[in-house]
Amino acid sequence: MRSVAVIGIGKTPFGAFQNKDLRTLAVEAGEKCFRDANVWPSQVDSFFLGNFAGPSFTGQNHLAPYVSTALGMAGIPATRIEDACASSGSAFYHAWREVASGLSDVVMVAGAEKMTTQATSRVTEILAAAGDCATEIRAGSTFPSLFAMIARRHMYQYGTTREHLSAVAVKNHENGALNPDAQMRKVITLEQAMAGKPIAEPLNLYDCSLISDGAAAVMLAPAERASEFTDKPVRILGIAQASDFVALDQKADITTFPALRIAAQKAYGMAGVSPKDIQFAELHDCFTIAEIVAMEDLGFVERGQGGFFTAAGETRRSGKMPINASGGLKSKGHPVGATGAAQICDVVQQIRCEAGDRQLKRHGLGLAQNLGGSGATCVVSILGEI
Amino acid sequence: MRSVAVIGIGKTPFGAFQNKDLRTLAVEAGEKCFRDANVWPSQVDSFFLGNFAGPSFTGQNHLAPYVSTALGMAGIPATRIEDACASSGSAFYHAWREVASGLSDVVMVAGAEKMTTQATSRVTEILAAAGDCATEIRAGSTFPSLFAMIARRHMYQYGTTREHLSAVAVKNHENGALNPDAQMRKVITLEQAMAGKPIAEPLNLYDCSLISDGAAAVMLAPAERASEFTDKPVRILGIAQASDFVALDQKADITTFPALRIAAQKAYGMAGVSPKDIQFAELHDCFTIAEIVAMEDLGFVERGQGGFFTAAGETRRSGKMPINASGGLKSKGHPVGATGAAQICDVVQQIRCEAGDRQLKRHGLGLAQNLGGSGATCVVSILGEI
Repeated sequence: MRSVAVIGIGKTPFGAFQNKDLRTLAVEAGEKCFRDANVWPSQVDSFFLGNFAGPSFTGQNHLAPYVSTALGMAGIPATRIEDACASSGSAFYHAWREVASGLSDVVMVAGAEKMTTQATSRVTEILAAAGDCATEIRAGSTFPSLFAMIARRHMYQYGTTREHLSAVAVKNHENGALNPDAQMRKVITLEQAMAGKPIAEPLNLYDCSLISDGAAAVMLAPAERASEFTDKPVRILGIAQASDFVALDQKADITTFPALRIAAQKAYGMAGVSPKDIQFAELHDCFTIAEIVAMEDLGFVERGQGGFFTAAGETRRSGKMPINASGGLKSKGHPVGATGAAQICDVVQQIRCEAGDRQLKRHGLGLAQNLGGSGATCVVSILGEI
Repeated sequence: MRSVAVIGIGKTPFGAFQNKDLRTLAVEAGEKCFRDANVWPSQVDSFFLGNFAGPSFTGQNHLAPYVSTALGMAGIPATRIEDACASSGSAFYHAWREVASGLSDVVMVAGAEKMTTQATSRVTEILAAAGDCATEIRAGSTFPSLFAMIARRHMYQYGTTREHLSAVAVKNHENGALNPDAQMRKVITLEQAMAGKPIAEPLNLYDCSLISDGAAAVMLAPAERASEFTDKPVRILGIAQASDFVALDQKADITTFPALRIAAQKAYGMAGVSPKDIQFAELHDCFTIAEIVAMEDLGFVERGQGGFFTAAGETRRSGKMPINASGGLKSKGHPVGATGAAQICDVVQQIRCEAGDRQLKRHGLGLAQNLGGSGATCVVSILGEI
């Protein structure tokens, strides 16, 4: 199995862009990625697009060739991957496999989602399709309510508090305010975060990620060829995807994500590192509680300690384990199908020391964790300097 | 690159099944596949699901873990592939890559679509999302009208006739009548086929494939391990996926599919065979004209000769090149996301000599061709006896 490098990245700002459709966004990210990687479209062997709900939000399906041909890549295999909010994390995983196996050399991954459309009034319903529509959704659940149940149970089992949840939001807003590509560049106080409008108790407005438009792209090549394209390649040291039941009520314990734990163990094993070696991470904070569960399942802290760790400031940029220096889904924005690829871009920017005002001191070994639904899909990627 | 074998297949009948939802259909096909392959769910390393429009037809998204966990495979990577009507052909291609590269041993591919739902009244719109919604679909095109333009131009350039199109329909109905899993087991005469209700002239009702529910599944393993599971493995000799523009008006010549030609050349090259070596084929006859174009692009006949070849009876089971002995999409049915995987099942049944009344005499080397949209995605697979 060959070692694989990220040789280029590109992303759009995240936000609500009335005049940009899904293809325009994906092409903008893709063209930035071509320039950053010094790759021409004709050099790309295969294309993967991560997208969750393009057909529901925009009416357009068959999205992979729709985007790849607009980027000048007609002819090559163009494949859309859908794994809910982990769609482009999964696309990145399959692209890595293709290069690692030797079947392709230069592979582009893009993730894109256009959520502000005429269908935005149905956004809760469209997102809920990532849950089990025959059971939990039919019974009235929405994603905020599913994660509210996770939060409530986490509070009961581990003593996690309302303040702990808000500490995640405050920290991610603090970081996002420094990110020029973030949708919500607004510092908030703990008091503001605690007093947010209730969405699904105990979760309030400040516990929930945003409705966003955006795209991100990543170019992969064998590490041994990376120097042909760039002088700042980043190596994929470990990566894994895993799955679990879609419905929350099929899980033995809703305060942990088995798919996350499986993917993490595999990725750590492949990279030959342990959680304490990781210097920073981009975690899937679709809701504040999701970041707390993720840091526990990744082994950054003991089970039940994520809230306390956050409240102690240890996940801030100055803390022991900086999490979501980008602002995370909470502040940066969460165009669902773009999130996994954008996390990779954010980790790569830190490793390359190109993260501007939010640059971390220790940035040699980073982790990205992308979650689908309430944990039915998870992808964990570990990247480091070459 | 390792040689890969199909070690098991499973499919549901195709039809309109009021009491079976998408997951039920996929599980039925998957369980048949487990039995046929002598594989337990715990032995599977990775799962791919081909599905085109599950969210639009059924409301359910995040379909890969939704199906894989119902089949007892929680934990492993579960990935949905969407490439319009070529979704499960593409899933089969990516599963093959995974086994061929040595990254996985036992991989399951399923394809599923549930088209008869409360959303069936919007079926034309849902299918049209595989075209370019910003241009051709916005201008009023539907898939029947896009393929009608292809047919009209083919008639103009090559002298293809209305009778030629109907000869495809008559032959596929003749075959489908012998297939117990076919949706429409009804022999039709040339006169009936010519007199069908106009849909988009020159295409009439008998030129169009069906609205169907159904699923199919295929199990792959390294050829060297196939004997652990089955005494009738079938080898994947050549396979390729290619892409092209989504909108018909972006193509230089609408009587040929460049993605098909690219995929075919790659698959022939990998298999080390030429078109004349192929003994039978399952082609993507979403419309009768699509079968005619496909046999030309695959090199079975010269450009423009597909209609004449069909009218001469050469694609019947008794002809020089039997095409769609299963009945094809036209008579067997076309549950969009299931079609690619079902074609593989049909080719494997012929090679194994298990095709019952429709068994062909020459069945050692078969080809399956799966098309997405009006040609923006194509997958060609060549399978043979081990």
